[in-house]
Amino acid sequence: MRNNNRNYNDLRTITITTDYVKHPEGSVLIEFGDTKVICNASIEDRVPPFMRGKGKGWITAEYAMLPRATEQRNIRESSKGKVGGRTMEIQRLIGRALRSVVDLDQIGERTVWVDCDVIQADGGTRTASITGAFVAVVLAFDKLKKANTIKKMPVTDFLAAISVGISPDGTELLDLDYGEDSNAHVDMNIVMTGEGEFVEVQGTGEEATFTSDQLQKMLGLASGGLKKINGIQKEVLGDAAGNIGETKTKEDTR
Amino acid sequence: MRNNNRNYNDLRTITITTDYVKHPEGSVLIEFGDTKVICNASIEDRVPPFMRGKGKGWITAEYAMLPRATEQRNIRESSKGKVGGRTMEIQRLIGRALRSVVDLDQIGERTVWVDCDVIQADGGTRTASITGAFVAVVLAFDKLKKANTIKKMPVTDFLAAISVGISPDGTELLDLDYGEDSNAHVDMNIVMTGEGEFVEVQGTGEEATFTSDQLQKMLGLASGGLKKINGIQKEVLGDAAGNIGETKTKEDTR
Amino acid sequence: MRNNNRNYNDLRTITITTDYVKHPEGSVLIEFGDTKVICNASIEDRVPPFMRGKGKGWITAEYAMLPRATEQRNIRESSKGKVGGRTMEIQRLIGRALRSVVDLDQIGERTVWVDCDVIQADGGTRTASITGAFVAVVLAFDKLKKANTIKKMPVTDFLAAISVGISPDGTELLDLDYGEDSNAHVDMNIVMTGEGEFVEVQGTGEEATFTSDQLQKMLGLASGGLKKINGIQKEVLGDAAGNIGETKTKEDTR
Amino acid sequence: MRNNNRNYNDLRTITITTDYVKHPEGSVLIEFGDTKVICNASIEDRVPPFMRGKGKGWITAEYAMLPRATEQRNIRESSKGKVGGRTMEIQRLIGRALRSVVDLDQIGERTVWVDCDVIQADGGTRTASITGAFVAVVLAFDKLKKANTIKKMPVTDFLAAISVGISPDGTELLDLDYGEDSNAHVDMNIVMTGEGEFVEVQGTGEEATFTSDQLQKMLGLASGGLKKINGIQKEVLGDAAGNIGETKTKEDTR
Amino acid sequence: MRNNNRNYNDLRTITITTDYVKHPEGSVLIEFGDTKVICNASIEDRVPPFMRGKGKGWITAEYAMLPRATEQRNIRESSKGKVGGRTMEIQRLIGRALRSVVDLDQIGERTVWVDCDVIQADGGTRTASITGAFVAVVLAFDKLKKANTIKKMPVTDFLAAISVGISPDGTELLDLDYGEDSNAHVDMNIVMTGEGEFVEVQGTGEEATFTSDQLQKMLGLASGGLKKINGIQKEVLGDAAGNIGETKTKEDTR
Amino acid sequence: MRNNNRNYNDLRTITITTDYVKHPEGSVLIEFGDTKVICNASIEDRVPPFMRGKGKGWITAEYAMLPRATEQRNIRESSKGKVGGRTMEIQRLIGRALRSVVDLDQIGERTVWVDCDVIQADGGTRTASITGAFVAVVLAFDKLKKANTIKKMPVTDFLAAISVGISPDGTELLDLDYGEDSNAHVDMNIVMTGEGEFVEVQGTGEEATFTSDQLQKMLGLASGGLKKINGIQKEVLGDAAGNIGETKTKEDTR
Repeated sequence: MRNNNRNYNDLRTITITTDYVKHPEGSVLIEFGDTKVICNASIEDRVPPFMRGKGKGWITAEYAMLPRATEQRNIRESSKGKVGGRTMEIQRLIGRALRSVVDLDQIGERTVWVDCDVIQADGGTRTASITGAFVAVVLAFDKLKKANTIKKMPVTDFLAAISVGISPDGTELLDLDYGEDSNAHVDMNIVMTGEGEFVEVQGTGEEATFTSDQLQKMLGLASGGLKKINGIQKEVLGDAAGNIGETKTKEDTR
Repeated sequence: MRNNNRNYNDLRTITITTDYVKHPEGSVLIEFGDTKVICNASIEDRVPPFMRGKGKGWITAEYAMLPRATEQRNIRESSKGKVGGRTMEIQRLIGRALRSVVDLDQIGERTVWVDCDVIQADGGTRTASITGAFVAVVLAFDKLKKANTIKKMPVTDFLAAISVGISPDGTELLDLDYGEDSNAHVDMNIVMTGEGEFVEVQGTGEEATFTSDQLQKMLGLASGGLKKINGIQKEVLGDAAGNIGETKTKEDTR
Repeated sequence: MRNNNRNYNDLRTITITTDYVKHPEGSVLIEFGDTKVICNASIEDRVPPFMRGKGKGWITAEYAMLPRATEQRNIRESSKGKVGGRTMEIQRLIGRALRSVVDLDQIGERTVWVDCDVIQADGGTRTASITGAFVAVVLAFDKLKKANTIKKMPVTDFLAAISVGISPDGTELLDLDYGEDSNAHVDMNIVMTGEGEFVEVQGTGEEATFTSDQLQKMLGLASGGLKKINGIQKEVLGDAAGNIGETKTKEDTR
Repeated sequence: MRNNNRNYNDLRTITITTDYVKHPEGSVLIEFGDTKVICNASIEDRVPPFMRGKGKGWITAEYAMLPRATEQRNIRESSKGKVGGRTMEIQRLIGRALRSVVDLDQIGERTVWVDCDVIQADGGTRTASITGAFVAVVLAFDKLKKANTIKKMPVTDFLAAISVGISPDGTELLDLDYGEDSNAHVDMNIVMTGEGEFVEVQGTGEEATFTSDQLQKMLGLASGGLKKINGIQKEVLGDAAGNIGETKTKEDTR
Repeated sequence: MRNNNRNYNDLRTITITTDYVKHPEGSVLIEFGDTKVICNASIEDRVPPFMRGKGKGWITAEYAMLPRATEQRNIRESSKGKVGGRTMEIQRLIGRALRSVVDLDQIGERTVWVDCDVIQADGGTRTASITGAFVAVVLAFDKLKKANTIKKMPVTDFLAAISVGISPDGTELLDLDYGEDSNAHVDMNIVMTGEGEFVEVQGTGEEATFTSDQLQKMLGLASGGLKKINGIQKEVLGDAAGNIGETKTKEDTR
Repeated sequence: MRNNNRNYNDLRTITITTDYVKHPEGSVLIEFGDTKVICNASIEDRVPPFMRGKGKGWITAEYAMLPRATEQRNIRESSKGKVGGRTMEIQRLIGRALRSVVDLDQIGERTVWVDCDVIQADGGTRTASITGAFVAVVLAFDKLKKANTIKKMPVTDFLAAISVGISPDGTELLDLDYGEDSNAHVDMNIVMTGEGEFVEVQGTGEEATFTSDQLQKMLGLASGGLKKINGIQKEVLGDAAGNIGETKTKEDTR
């Protein structure tokens, strides 16, 4: 049996507190069990140089952990003077995932800065970050819409992420905590839309390998968990949730 | 009248939540009004190179703000690749202040890492950091003492900090919020022990100057406020507070 | 029709030149069409600090592009003073993939440094890098084995990587060149063993999404292509290929 | 008795050599006993980005030591690739202090760069820097005024700095040399105007504490010393000194 | 006798392969024996800030080695986060040398980026780089001329470089390989035009000294070798070589 | 006629002040006309990692300019966070030159750190640095010898450096000041021993070229100037000069 009597296909308790910090346009504290991440969305009225003059917006993300979010204290990346590879991977993933469900043409030349700061880590910080960041971004756009700065909610669909893996005894597990993740032979992160389409599938044999069959089982577990998470997101978003999808599909801007 | 009907000599509401994050040896969330700082104290079983072989310990502090702790989003120092001058000043101040009330000979060759992370800023983040860090450090030592790792609480006295300043109309004010601080002609931070002795006095005419008389009034305001803060610290520390001072005075180790 | 009359499930011409540079223990030039990567494997007789004293080895990879490997000249990362996020992701991927088919216990306290330097880029540089690096690593171990430095070839299975994607018209494609990759709605990189097990599955909706059915089709295409690539690797490795798998399975060293 | 038969309230011999280096608009070598600092003031005809378009100027300072200004050679900050916390604190202090006695509205969109380079250190380098930089800045403005680039001397009052401290035997001391500073229980730096108003008061219990009474005694000692230093500054400035204060008070530009 | 039966005044086999990489405007692989360098010339339609608005162009060079170009693997400069002194010296030398035979007024506000990447090193990498870069630059200008972007070949003369040195037994040697270079008492690099004028003379007693007579002998050896290298350059350049010198002499633009 | 009525073969006035800064083992201020450089030699009782365990010493040099040593203020390299190419070239040159006349076997496992800090620049800062650094190093070794830390003066010969060049009108000039250097078509730096042997010959056509005949004339001018400089060095060194050469020749330690 897993911690807290979880079954192989059970999520941890997920809590999303909105308006957690007062300054950002959108702010949530998201908790996946003992994993706690502050997700802030800030709107800036300009875009980075490579996007200028295109009449459309941009979404970018940054991710960090407090030094003592973990069992052992980590050296602060500002003290090291550089951002590590793991951090870069995660923040690129968060930004890419959010951009897949936002119609950037609708938001004008604005940048949405998403900051995911892990204050306590117990596995799944990147999936909690994406899931919480989605809510923060919708809240920020909702504020812009209420202020008539934008006309429509530019978010085309729900978005959430979850981890799945394979335990040493060969069982596929949903939403691994830190202890499970450390022991897992395979670690996979899935990002999906409310419609059930994939945005990202990242499966890694941690110095091991996995079969096609195992892959299918993990995808199925993830899919089930993500439906439940979409429900939680919808609930905390309240009225703002109703506008998701009013921009039906992203224009293909390539 | 000040915000929230504060008088010139009133503190903001101060709240200290202990055991805020689960991993650190000592952890608090401290709030001075809308200023919120997570203060974590971590014990490491070794000292930095310049302290090795002396049989005594070390305390060092790091300070950071979440990018959107403030009204305008700040660029992350890890992204800039370097720690700014303001941050350095503050973290040097926090470390120095804490070392003034800890007998480093009592803790063996251990380092106390104090991390002060501002999640929401509304003025006085450095004084809130020192005040909260003191509580986190006492909690961490209390844990060491209960585990018999150290024999006595090595903290010799209470320690807290507060800001004072002079408003544009010439009034001395206690515990400035962000709006007051931005307008103040003089900005002063005072760190004091429970016995009422000074640890740090840092007064800055913000491109202005101040008289000896104004200095005295500010010192008086600070002194009164700090007594009250010591009371709050004592209350949240409970039993652990009783051991403060059992190491009567620091040996002079110079 | 694709460039060079390729069908949707055709690989580009793949060429592997062994002993390309004279100093490294293993060195190949690998070409996937116009993509050309020098893969060098260097053996160092020590391991990084976090691996010391465990009696086992380590494999790590670095990846870079010549500034003018691409249509537009890129700024050199040494001139920028830091390694970018894309580079970090790729070099972490290469190292992780190689470690999945090498029994690190067999090689003693040695580090294999794998350097993948792209001299000309036309899509698929990371998959060419993994595929070529595998050959360079086998060559390096073969040299160690012939010198009796190690007793058995520590490589447990073949390893190769390929990209698949979905074109704007909805067709799944194998081994995308740069033009195809720039237009693709979905981009996926698959790393697989000779036994057909997955090592990495990284699928990204490039600001788009994909269905479960599309995922299956892409996995199938990749699987077919990788079998052919394993054949090419086997041929260029000659005798050394015969020893792959003599260390049957990696011990679980977690 | 102190070195050189100094009494507790004696300054060291202070010498200011004007026009020390030929290129800068203002240049002095200042000596406080064996502490020697070159202070150069350079005028640049533009302001930093955050000041543009306001029609006023800016003053900023940089501080450094030659590697062998001290008993032990220090690693050059350019070799380390970053400026340390102590350096940052000092250069922020110098700039802030100078801005308190210059009416930035009078100088147009110009930046005064103040460079304080310590060529020999024996305690009190930051106070010597401020004291010397003040003279260099007045000389630079005098040159601008003589060239009719500015109409009035924009310096509103004299400015100087001195250190005070408490020796291990409890005596308050003025202008500590390196040996005294290393042993002092309390270290305080005072910056004051010619009118006797405070600009900065920075007192630090060096892992010790001090009473209100000790603070008063130190402030008194500093005040006496600074009057004498103002006299020396006035003498070396000659005619230029006469124009200080013709801009009576700074406008409040906040 | 030297390796490969070379006499003291023999060059190694020199091979220049043009159009080595497909993207750059000019690209060659140059080989001096086992030393192999890819030299790419890229044309950018703007100049660096310090050259803007002058109506003339700029040439700059970057130099790097693959980590395993050498017997021992070198740490990548991008991983170190900074470019070393030796690299800087070489890239400054290459750029300066090329600028001496190009009339920058003829090329408009364009920058020629020259990238010299050593893929295998066996002594003389900087002289091979200059010699190959010259060919790449002529090829790039030839392409601009054929496209009527520039009217005349702006290259005023041939340019090549070679190393000379003094062996431990006192013999002057031409074109040292790595083994010879490591043992040489004196190391000298000569850059010369087709007309036989010096562009750079850099002689270094490697912790040794040399006489005027030895200097003359080395200059003579270099001069003879460089004539032969000019012949090889002329041959590989084919028709493009005929236009060198049509801009007879550089205008003096100082 | 040149400034100060100098003939083409005249040196500027050269002044060497010994014991300029009190802490270093050897310290001089050297002036070549208006060029002023502080040269400090510091002895450290250990060698860098690559020299450990060989029983011999090392000499290394660092070079910097005060920001306003020049007509226009330069950005401090510590603020930029990196040392520029020109600085690296110069400090490598200084170190290499000094090592050519010091028998590193005589000094034990010690490092001589040579710091050359230009406080005022008017051309020839690198040659003044080498010339002054030589004196500082001899003074430092003299102190070690007097303290019986080393037995013999390990300096085998005198060492000095001078610049020569060709003016726009074709005249070869000795010891160029800044104005001359800016206009010169060719710039050459010569480092020579007291015996008249070359240590370094660095001639650069500044985007121009020079003939063999011009090279000979410049070498002749340099040789004459350097003899005079050796005389000045000998005079200021006094008794210490007498020991130069008591270690007759360097052992060949390669």
